[in-house]
Amino acid sequence: MALAADSGAPEPGSGAARLLDACAHRVPDATPVWFMRQAGRSLPEYRRLREAHDLLTLATTPELAAAVTLMPVETLGVDGAVLFADIMLPVAGMGLAFEIRPGVGPVVPDPIRSSGDVARLRIPDPREATPYVLETIRLARRALGDRAALIGFAGGPFTLACYCVEGRGARDFPRTRGLMHADPATFAALMTTLTETTVRYLAAQVESGCQVVQIFESWAGSLSAVDFDRHVVPHLARIVEALRDRVPTILFATGAPHLLEQLARVGSPGLSLDWRVPLDHAWATVGHDRFVQGNLDPAVCLAPWPVVRTAAHEVIARAGGRPGHIFNLGHGVDPATDPDVLRQLVEWVHSTAAPEDRGGG
Amino acid sequence: MALAADSGAPEPGSGAARLLDACAHRVPDATPVWFMRQAGRSLPEYRRLREAHDLLTLATTPELAAAVTLMPVETLGVDGAVLFADIMLPVAGMGLAFEIRPGVGPVVPDPIRSSGDVARLRIPDPREATPYVLETIRLARRALGDRAALIGFAGGPFTLACYCVEGRGARDFPRTRGLMHADPATFAALMTTLTETTVRYLAAQVESGCQVVQIFESWAGSLSAVDFDRHVVPHLARIVEALRDRVPTILFATGAPHLLEQLARVGSPGLSLDWRVPLDHAWATVGHDRFVQGNLDPAVCLAPWPVVRTAAHEVIARAGGRPGHIFNLGHGVDPATDPDVLRQLVEWVHSTAAPEDRGGG
Repeated sequence: MALAADSGAPEPGSGAARLLDACAHRVPDATPVWFMRQAGRSLPEYRRLREAHDLLTLATTPELAAAVTLMPVETLGVDGAVLFADIMLPVAGMGLAFEIRPGVGPVVPDPIRSSGDVARLRIPDPREATPYVLETIRLARRALGDRAALIGFAGGPFTLACYCVEGRGARDFPRTRGLMHADPATFAALMTTLTETTVRYLAAQVESGCQVVQIFESWAGSLSAVDFDRHVVPHLARIVEALRDRVPTILFATGAPHLLEQLARVGSPGLSLDWRVPLDHAWATVGHDRFVQGNLDPAVCLAPWPVVRTAAHEVIARAGGRPGHIFNLGHGVDPATDPDVLRQLVEWVHSTAAPEDRGGG
Repeated sequence: MALAADSGAPEPGSGAARLLDACAHRVPDATPVWFMRQAGRSLPEYRRLREAHDLLTLATTPELAAAVTLMPVETLGVDGAVLFADIMLPVAGMGLAFEIRPGVGPVVPDPIRSSGDVARLRIPDPREATPYVLETIRLARRALGDRAALIGFAGGPFTLACYCVEGRGARDFPRTRGLMHADPATFAALMTTLTETTVRYLAAQVESGCQVVQIFESWAGSLSAVDFDRHVVPHLARIVEALRDRVPTILFATGAPHLLEQLARVGSPGLSLDWRVPLDHAWATVGHDRFVQGNLDPAVCLAPWPVVRTAAHEVIARAGGRPGHIFNLGHGVDPATDPDVLRQLVEWVHSTAAPEDRGGG
């Protein structure tokens, strides 16, 4: 049943092998590379598709979503193909309607504000609530072969809670933090429902063919270390634990340099680092038994190639030749990025000596 | 000429004395307290005024702006009265038009994108560009007496640059960071122009009667430590140096737990801490020779009073009885905050033993 198991280990030298080697701390033939939001507005092929379809139509139509998932593998040569979807998709199945407004992002017209609102939510079966996501994964995996590892993802429970409570994106999500402080029991009930939904959603993604999954706990950094530890870490640990031995997990947060130790405590084998803390410092803090990705400031990719190369070299140098490093940005590709710069970056990362050759410890 | 000098030291036991004592590491009669954005949408008196006038009219009409500045002293009993103004006011005098859009914030219709755009900017004389701000200060200071210290403020040069380049608020201001990476010379020229404008603007505020000034380098946290050090610290240091021996300065940044050492290196005697790092840790990092304010999560004030009191007690306990602590929030008052909670909080902070009585070191 599990496509991942059926298809066996990817061919040595392939993009999928390169990325999965890094996840397992094996020495890859070259440093693997992919970019968060690589399948998005920076690609002209994607923009053309978006002229004909809105974002949710793209994300819920398996043939289209699979095509977008593959685009950056075909046009940029990356080693990871991240599922094209939206973190809010499983939330609709919980009984909470949302829409994606252009220039705004996810909007929840009737946000969660009370224990009654939380009690009405259900934990959906992803085969019923988001069958199109699972079909997208099957199509994409088949079309990819070993060219790139297929990376599934979900929003972290706190990040989903931010949209559910706030109703839309906001700086530091004060209403969400307000609910957490004012009514911790209701907040915990919401987090539990979101967590169990996410466990089922990610397990179904793995069964359908995802070889790696990333948990976007993007807005964790708006919490203090004490609050993150108390209100979020146990939920994230539950998700990671449920997937252990099935798939490598990567935990992502941005603007969270004060949470590195707490993020490590979640227990995910992989961590995605934003650009605020140098890679070597962050890796030492989370522990060298973790694999890491990220760290290049996405705004650097708005600069001409020599500036990008210098900054990329800095990241590679700070990785110090250790196996367990996946090259990536510290956050998503900016829509204004020139795809040629990304293409050059992939080529440069691949042509740079592989971890084992660079020595270092 | 300088009203601050003319009026001599504030009366012992007054709000102004309390706050200025903390700035000077003298032992105050009680812990001083004020709130960022205390003169804003959380107050019903302010909302009533806003029904009749838009924000810029309020900020540029001295009688109205002075009345709003005094409101929280009269209704909440705080020890600091922060000037009611907008950080963008001096930018208009530089030759860059802006507007305040409801629900959006500052918008710059023709943002800075090139060296030519920067070359066209001028460094205005604040007596010509923002006379209404200086008149507001004179009116407010006269009306305040010693009830509260008058706190002036300006945006930090990076934060102003974010609005000038991005054109409006944005998460992590990618275009601004992009310009910094792609064209550091143009970025530095912009920062220098903003810095010199700010030096003159704040000096004029002090001459007009401000007794403390706060520099809102609010968005500094979107930069890595290396980039903040290289591209921002020298400019902030120039501002602080220009005001040294004239007025205590408080440097504020949010979401910047990775920049504490760099923020301390700027040399401001006062630092405002957000809620991400516990006060005792942050104070130890920036040095006990600094005075500090802030740290209470503003979202806590959305909770019932017992929750607020517990969290406030935690902040006071972590201050450990050291002189040089001003009670404040980690960021601005949330508009949904009940003013009664703020009133209770001020009363509670004042009734709590003063630093000298709590011992500790």
